[in-house]
Amino acid sequence: MDFQHIFASRASRMKASEIRELLKLLEQPGIISFAGGIPDPAIFPAAAFKEAYQDALSAEKQSTALQYSVSEGYLPLRKWLAQQMAKLGVDCGPENILITSGSQQALDYLGKLFLSPNDTALINWPTYLGALGAFNAYEPRYDRLQVNGNRSAADYAAEAEAAGGRVKFAYLSADFSNPTGETVDQRGRENLLALAEDLDCAVIEDAAYQSLRYDGEAIAPILALEMARKGDINACRTVYCGSFSKTLSPGLRVGWVCAAAPVISQMVLLKQAGDLHSSTVNQMAIHHVAESQFDSHVAKLHSAYSARRDAMLAALHEFMPEGVSWTRPEGGMFVWITLPVGLNGADLLQRALETVKVAFVPGRAFFADGSGENTIRLSFSCADEATIREGVQRLASVVSAEIAAQ
Amino acid sequence: MDFQHIFASRASRMKASEIRELLKLLEQPGIISFAGGIPDPAIFPAAAFKEAYQDALSAEKQSTALQYSVSEGYLPLRKWLAQQMAKLGVDCGPENILITSGSQQALDYLGKLFLSPNDTALINWPTYLGALGAFNAYEPRYDRLQVNGNRSAADYAAEAEAAGGRVKFAYLSADFSNPTGETVDQRGRENLLALAEDLDCAVIEDAAYQSLRYDGEAIAPILALEMARKGDINACRTVYCGSFSKTLSPGLRVGWVCAAAPVISQMVLLKQAGDLHSSTVNQMAIHHVAESQFDSHVAKLHSAYSARRDAMLAALHEFMPEGVSWTRPEGGMFVWITLPVGLNGADLLQRALETVKVAFVPGRAFFADGSGENTIRLSFSCADEATIREGVQRLASVVSAEIAAQ
Repeated sequence: MDFQHIFASRASRMKASEIRELLKLLEQPGIISFAGGIPDPAIFPAAAFKEAYQDALSAEKQSTALQYSVSEGYLPLRKWLAQQMAKLGVDCGPENILITSGSQQALDYLGKLFLSPNDTALINWPTYLGALGAFNAYEPRYDRLQVNGNRSAADYAAEAEAAGGRVKFAYLSADFSNPTGETVDQRGRENLLALAEDLDCAVIEDAAYQSLRYDGEAIAPILALEMARKGDINACRTVYCGSFSKTLSPGLRVGWVCAAAPVISQMVLLKQAGDLHSSTVNQMAIHHVAESQFDSHVAKLHSAYSARRDAMLAALHEFMPEGVSWTRPEGGMFVWITLPVGLNGADLLQRALETVKVAFVPGRAFFADGSGENTIRLSFSCADEATIREGVQRLASVVSAEIAAQ
Repeated sequence: MDFQHIFASRASRMKASEIRELLKLLEQPGIISFAGGIPDPAIFPAAAFKEAYQDALSAEKQSTALQYSVSEGYLPLRKWLAQQMAKLGVDCGPENILITSGSQQALDYLGKLFLSPNDTALINWPTYLGALGAFNAYEPRYDRLQVNGNRSAADYAAEAEAAGGRVKFAYLSADFSNPTGETVDQRGRENLLALAEDLDCAVIEDAAYQSLRYDGEAIAPILALEMARKGDINACRTVYCGSFSKTLSPGLRVGWVCAAAPVISQMVLLKQAGDLHSSTVNQMAIHHVAESQFDSHVAKLHSAYSARRDAMLAALHEFMPEGVSWTRPEGGMFVWITLPVGLNGADLLQRALETVKVAFVPGRAFFADGSGENTIRLSFSCADEATIREGVQRLASVVSAEIAAQ
């Protein structure tokens, strides 16, 4: 049975994520992997989750935990999140919070909410691969967002119109972004807000890594900066996407959106039509664990991950040959490497796997325009310091050989 | 901040489900509710789930349970489901199974996979409201599916083409459907398959209630009938959507799709872009409970729900005035009532809530063409027999008064 001719036109834009396909190949023994951007399972608060599920399934709560629930999400969790957002400078109520199945689902629903075919989404070059995957289904055009660049709003708007739509949103991860690990400074955030005003478009702030700052001074979320200007979340155009996947656990699939009430109420309709609601019992379990130990658990992550980041930066400094440069992230899970022009990240991966058993992600997949051939992403979240040093040393030997062969 | 003008065109077709809005109003004390199509929480296998989460979070399994996992779904669960499908006459492997977050998500993804704007979806008048909600986002045209009707495939195709697209699929729930409780007989299923062949379109079989047959002879799933003709699932055009929501628990959001491998692999891409994967820990918990007690738990449901259905049918017979007719479901959760022409289900609901505190769902929302004004849906799943008798008696008194006032 051939289905291609009866699929919708959008199906042709849905391609397998290279990263997720790659993850399937890494189960060979002996590989040192800097590939997956996933939390270290050894640090999951498993005992707290065990207790949380016992509590959710206690006689008093089990008929709530196992039953259908409202599309907006579990109210105690939404209240807890509204308090967390207030600590970040975003004064809001539970009516400004929607629970999603991870922030990936928020990106899918935001694409669905805003993008008609040929509308323009402004994104970074490179950007989070999962955002490209989510948005692609709605057949947008992409344009390159440069928060400190020279292009005017009128230029962006004219090109969007020429392509048959308009600029609907600018998407970015402002803190320790996937894949580069870089942070947008306050001036960049203010510039972005000014651009969004001029374009009359939304801003999608992907805050998946925001809690994972190890040093440097915290910068207010874009939504908080807009709140400070406007005084009311319902006057804001920034849509904030948060996630528990990098802090407590990705396996429960719990994230949230915080935004103006008109956006939330429209997204509730998408949620209702999309999967009714996120798992009731998981929302209760996340609430239980977050309430009792969110801050102390995040402190534990800071301590583990910052030592690994330091080990990776030190090893890069020690072993990488001249001509290779990299970012110095203040948080998150990633270091972004730029190789000399002419080297190819995908070829390097093949060579590194074959000769020194080191894995990472070639950078090109993160670029909507197919550029970035000479970039790679290294994740430091899942290996101990000694393994990181060993892996970077091995990788550097392959890079040196490739440069010598140029 | 006004967002309407920057939302995608599809947003205008997303409306709140009358049923889910209604459910929020039913928390007043003293209401006898036949409204929600939800399982009785008193029958959830809560002890088994408690044990299942302890097992999933044991030292050996916790780093799997709390971690990211593959978009296809948890392999042991997919293997278990492939065996279940084989018992129904569908010989398949785990590569033919995708785990979704409830069958609602399967409907969303199938709309996304097949429907470009102005394509035609064939549906029943009435049909499952959640299917309309899911499909509406992809801006289709609807046409009325009549499996025992006289319209030819050429007629359907010509009208679809005149509307600017083609027929992409026929959607139906063949067993004890929501909302009517009716079952499509084997001849109807065979007719549907012949129509789908002529139209070269897919068939979406919503099997949410299929396990809940209380009496009468089981009819093979549409996918099993097609398998019997074609001998290979990968030659089949039927996409089967199953759910644990009506059998084990809706609060975990676990359902599945069983279909030809090309459909599954394309849906895996939608899943990856949509929410990465369904909750790992929940898939493990469902697998644990299903493996140990799916059949015995379903037997328990049959015993409870069939007694309630019998009580409802007996009470309707005893109390409803002449001119009112209803379906006699062999399973599921619903009886569908047709009132005399001129009566209005929505008005009746208001009157019934005010005067006798009985709730149900007016039928019109289930019709894509806005007809069905004189129909209502009663659910018998959540009240005991005595309450059902009392509720039907009260409702009948209001119906009688409305008829007398005509």
